Amino acid sequence: MNMAMQMMEMHAAEMPATGMDMALMQECIEACSACEQACTMCASSMMGDEMMKCTSMCMNSADMANTMMRMMMRPSGMHAPSMMTALQATMSMSNACAEECMMHAETSDDARMCADVNRQLAASCQKMMDAMAGMMPTRA
Amino acid sequence: MNMAMQMMEMHAAEMPATGMDMALMQECIEACSACEQACTMCASSMMGDEMMKCTSMCMNSADMANTMMRMMMRPSGMHAPSMMTALQATMSMSNACAEECMMHAETSDDARMCADVNRQLAASCQKMMDAMAGMMPTRA
Amino acid sequence: MNMAMQMMEMHAAEMPATGMDMALMQECIEACSACEQACTMCASSMMGDEMMKCTSMCMNSADMANTMMRMMMRPSGMHAPSMMTALQATMSMSNACAEECMMHAETSDDARMCADVNRQLAASCQKMMDAMAGMMPTRA
Amino acid sequence: MNMAMQMMEMHAAEMPATGMDMALMQECIEACSACEQACTMCASSMMGDEMMKCTSMCMNSADMANTMMRMMMRPSGMHAPSMMTALQATMSMSNACAEECMMHAETSDDARMCADVNRQLAASCQKMMDAMAGMMPTRA
Repeated sequence: MNMAMQMMEMHAAEMPATGMDMALMQECIEACSACEQACTMCASSMMGDEMMKCTSMCMNSADMANTMMRMMMRPSGMHAPSMMTALQATMSMSNACAEECMMHAETSDDARMCADVNRQLAASCQKMMDAMAGMMPTRA
Repeated sequence: MNMAMQMMEMHAAEMPATGMDMALMQECIEACSACEQACTMCASSMMGDEMMKCTSMCMNSADMANTMMRMMMRPSGMHAPSMMTALQATMSMSNACAEECMMHAETSDDARMCADVNRQLAASCQKMMDAMAGMMPTRA
Repeated sequence: MNMAMQMMEMHAAEMPATGMDMALMQECIEACSACEQACTMCASSMMGDEMMKCTSMCMNSADMANTMMRMMMRPSGMHAPSMMTALQATMSMSNACAEECMMHAETSDDARMCADVNRQLAASCQKMMDAMAGMMPTRA
Repeated sequence: MNMAMQMMEMHAAEMPATGMDMALMQECIEACSACEQACTMCASSMMGDEMMKCTSMCMNSADMANTMMRMMMRPSGMHAPSMMTALQATMSMSNACAEECMMHAETSDDARMCADVNRQLAASCQKMMDAMAGMMPTRA
């Protein structure tokens, strides 16, 4: 993680909007990574018929978190409006996943912990969007 | 592809909103798959300094298309509001990627073809969203 | 699919080993894509406690198939020895997944169809490896 | 990361081979994650015509590292022989990527750092394979 963050800082100047808050973005990258990992494990440990929905939502959240993380790690391809909609999609998915996981929190420690990590990612996406709003020039 | 589509049809009844247009969704899945493939190739064939942006945007679009495709292939985890934001994010990313690719269309056949495939995905996402709007029950 | 294949043919000359059988590689790419899709669906439709293993193996096979597909779609980065080990890993994973899916074939049409698609991918990887063996220069 | 590791420890008993070294596996998961991140950034910052190969190899390594990481995070789907071939493929890919990145280390800090992270992943995979050899029951 540290090395990727050092690499990212070397590219801060290339970001399409100067003033992009690097600390927030690094926090969001770490939240994506944590969420992908927790969701992957959670999806693999669900048991019983009623868990199918939770497994599938966790896999969706893991994939979306990974895509979001990669988008933030490609400074030269950063495009503010796409970034905003991707953050919105990630937040929506991780909130929905957290909600579903919480329904199994009593019986599954995985699900409870996975819900936490999803909520952290949703909060981090919200912070990113707040910081980007107003700052980014509008491009189609 | 055919077999996955057959599998999908067996699960049509589980979809959270009855009346989900399976033909549209299958078209969108194929558009995602085509876009991931074209973008992966395009990102790997860009040359010259000014192409870095195009490479990165293609990789973003490939990842987003793959995530979107997988979300549509998990009927048991389908959650309408997350699906809508993900379709929006995919459309936004593939439109941005198409626009960037078109800037290199004169000199790169890859870029021109990749732009076409991205535009097809964006159009397919729009159709999905139009079909879903009004049909899906609103959940947080 | 067609467009990516057209793009691939434009890059045939860049392949590290001249004589790479394009038809075989395209068949393998399609097998990867079909396998990722079938496994993603199958993993999302498993029910009951004993299905956890099948779900997890399907997700592994889906991820491996996607990685393998992408490796074949990046002509400029093709490195024969890595390709060979990746084909070996993909074949090993899809065979293991097919074997696990077959245990549920009586009760699940998804699992039976998913097993078929996995076996097709394994066979396609074997053909690729046979074609590459002897043809590729050995590098560490 | 910490939470996923806690989750993993709760599932240690489900691992197919008791005695699986959890510390080694966690180290390998972190190495995969670091490698995916560094490679994603490196692939997005390469400049000039001769960098195309490096970009493509970095993307291959990022995808393989992600797949390997996910395979380790699905305890219920762990299948020793597939795991071994996947570790071999990951090691082969990250070594090849490190070698290519080192050719650009003089002029690119990204490439130099990315090479380091790839080498760390290759070493971690080797350690995993050493620990697994002899320990795992052989299955087809």
